[in-house]
Amino acid sequence: MMLRSLETFGVGEEGRPRAYGRNLVNSASIFKALTVETLPSRLGSLEALRRIGGEPSQWTIREVGDGNLNLVFIVEGPKGGVVVKQALPYVRLVGDSWPLPLKRAFFECNALKRQGERDPGRVPRIFHFDEAQALIVMEYLHPHVILRRAFIEGRRLRNVARHLGLYVARNLFLGSDLAMDAPAKKKDMALFADNVELCDITENLVFTDPYFPAKLNRHTPQLDDMVKVLRADRDLKVEAQHLKYLFTASAQTLLHGDLHTGSVMVTDDDTRVIDPEFAVYGPMAFDVGMLLANFWMAYFSQPGHEQNGSRADMRVWLLAATVEIWQTFREEFTRLWATRRGILYPKSLYEDQGDHLGARQALDHLLHDIWQDMLGFAGVEIHRRILGLAHNADFETIEDEEVRASCERPALAFGRHIVVNRRRIASIEEVHAVARLMVGEENQ
Amino acid sequence: MMLRSLETFGVGEEGRPRAYGRNLVNSASIFKALTVETLPSRLGSLEALRRIGGEPSQWTIREVGDGNLNLVFIVEGPKGGVVVKQALPYVRLVGDSWPLPLKRAFFECNALKRQGERDPGRVPRIFHFDEAQALIVMEYLHPHVILRRAFIEGRRLRNVARHLGLYVARNLFLGSDLAMDAPAKKKDMALFADNVELCDITENLVFTDPYFPAKLNRHTPQLDDMVKVLRADRDLKVEAQHLKYLFTASAQTLLHGDLHTGSVMVTDDDTRVIDPEFAVYGPMAFDVGMLLANFWMAYFSQPGHEQNGSRADMRVWLLAATVEIWQTFREEFTRLWATRRGILYPKSLYEDQGDHLGARQALDHLLHDIWQDMLGFAGVEIHRRILGLAHNADFETIEDEEVRASCERPALAFGRHIVVNRRRIASIEEVHAVARLMVGEENQ
Repeated sequence: MMLRSLETFGVGEEGRPRAYGRNLVNSASIFKALTVETLPSRLGSLEALRRIGGEPSQWTIREVGDGNLNLVFIVEGPKGGVVVKQALPYVRLVGDSWPLPLKRAFFECNALKRQGERDPGRVPRIFHFDEAQALIVMEYLHPHVILRRAFIEGRRLRNVARHLGLYVARNLFLGSDLAMDAPAKKKDMALFADNVELCDITENLVFTDPYFPAKLNRHTPQLDDMVKVLRADRDLKVEAQHLKYLFTASAQTLLHGDLHTGSVMVTDDDTRVIDPEFAVYGPMAFDVGMLLANFWMAYFSQPGHEQNGSRADMRVWLLAATVEIWQTFREEFTRLWATRRGILYPKSLYEDQGDHLGARQALDHLLHDIWQDMLGFAGVEIHRRILGLAHNADFETIEDEEVRASCERPALAFGRHIVVNRRRIASIEEVHAVARLMVGEENQ
Repeated sequence: MMLRSLETFGVGEEGRPRAYGRNLVNSASIFKALTVETLPSRLGSLEALRRIGGEPSQWTIREVGDGNLNLVFIVEGPKGGVVVKQALPYVRLVGDSWPLPLKRAFFECNALKRQGERDPGRVPRIFHFDEAQALIVMEYLHPHVILRRAFIEGRRLRNVARHLGLYVARNLFLGSDLAMDAPAKKKDMALFADNVELCDITENLVFTDPYFPAKLNRHTPQLDDMVKVLRADRDLKVEAQHLKYLFTASAQTLLHGDLHTGSVMVTDDDTRVIDPEFAVYGPMAFDVGMLLANFWMAYFSQPGHEQNGSRADMRVWLLAATVEIWQTFREEFTRLWATRRGILYPKSLYEDQGDHLGARQALDHLLHDIWQDMLGFAGVEIHRRILGLAHNADFETIEDEEVRASCERPALAFGRHIVVNRRRIASIEEVHAVARLMVGEENQ
């Protein structure tokens, strides 16, 4: 999405994909990349662009993709603007030696459509999709900024936690066997199973590469000793692969698949979730874990952004926002539970027999399992952002390596703690007590 | 398969499928059911049938499908015989008011092919497949009999436990992310996801219907009181639906999907696993649990078959065989673990770093999880065979209802015990101590 250009990324954030030896280019024979010059003539007659008014030749067009996977154009006319996002058959940053399939645009479009139905208003509207050209014309979100950027600047946002809590609850619940009938869910799962190349990226970059000296890994040099210890940590590595197994073999619901704070755009009031090109059926806890991990990384990175004053209040706010996401998720999931009409936990076994406590027990067990696995996914997400290829701006924009390492070190320890101990952590307050303990001890 | 005709079934064993309001008939326009009369002219020129020698007009043809889902012909010529199995677009037992898709033959054929590669010699050979006619020409297994029938007769078989332990280990391991690369596995998962109608049958008949008074349920009248208690058992019903969730949302490996003792054919030395038309990607523990459950039901049913003498030795043998299946499964799975080349638990994280204990820890955690879930799946399988639509011959052939109920009662209690307590049962010896306790207390 366009606001990628506003973020200060490390190599990783956008450089995630890599080729695994297969030629993933498809539709390349009819596909043709847009340019600022050809866009008006190629797309000028589309209803989706006519909405911005004026003559195509007079539109203002900026390409803001900035070294990413994709081309992203902002097209503005007298009546407004749209975003044109086009996938390239390779990673733009690297070139055609690093192929990546165009079909990711198809999955992004399909995911946005479902997410828009399941939690209306929380994703950008789609005006047009051209599969052969891997091209989506969608709503131009402004004056939105990327949430990660807002956190780096120390901005507090009044609605974001509630919006994101609702977003995950509604999408995860309504895309699962708790809400869908079996044929519809299995058919959709089979559809998204073809998004295998992007899935493959997640499987390797999140769960495996951070835990051994993979070629594309990097980390702040001051962390050398700690990295060595983590990569020799048997319990951590066994759990990380167990979580990978959950990711590859649990088709519970349609995931966003890349739900970090770089995939969220905000204003003071509005929240939008973008870029679901990694969408796949997977475990509910994955999206929640990745999301909370990015809030926790924002928390740990705050001391590195104190050039213009203390971030103590921002840190308190971030933990409170994380609590609010989790509580909102639980409450909305519980509300939806009462409406369940899928194939699981039919009311004929519980409520219809007068056993409301049975239904509650089943729900609480489900939420308990999501809680435990969420902590695991959150922990590995933190690790891969500090040890792997795909770093994030929260830490990367801290220029002083000593300061950056002093933020990353407690985050790594925290991540390890919640992965390995997740079956014996009862509440998010307990998690936050650990986070605060880590920060207080960061210089030891 | 042909030997269905040798079994004494209740309504259930073959009457499992039912329509869920959709018209599942496909390819019905070109499909034409075979008859004994038309088979020679329709199939006589196939190489797959020419192998039996002689002229088609002189072949001996018997239709032995006997009220099942499918048509099953045994075709014999001077040089041998073949089996021709043809699906019907409806449940044969009921007629075309009860549609069932022809594509199940496609899934059966594909499953047999994979199983034949993963554990050579353990499934019937396929000579010909005609998708439009939903027709498989396969090896005629003789003098094999159905394993369930052998157990009812009190026969002990020297190889069956080892063969079945190897079969489940090899198929479950080699069909999973432990052995396959991600694109191949996801593509295959998507293929089998379309076997949704037969999956739907399992989801309802195994996990839900037994636990409330569903229309097609039946049970031995003497069990009324116990059934009432089980259907009010909150912990049991919550666990049963949790297991259903694992079944619907865990795509760990390609399952047989219906691995009971009626899907196994034996001689004194040979063992063959047939009828994988319910094949789907699901949790490893499902096949193992269903298989062991059917051995345990054979155990509990033995006192009902003592017309010609005590079955005490047979009972001892059955428990020993069950131990052997489980131990063989564990050993073979462990042996295969060392050869793993899939995307999970890469050696780069463990062995390559000299951490053999880490690899062992990961394996043992996996086996521990399979163990716990296996007990759960086994327990619900026992319940649905006594309380649901699909009963089995072990109990059904006990004509005296009092005697039958006295066998079923301890089996039900045993099933409930292993479902609800499965996370706190350490070994199969412990399970068998419970089984023996139940039998000793059957009259209390």
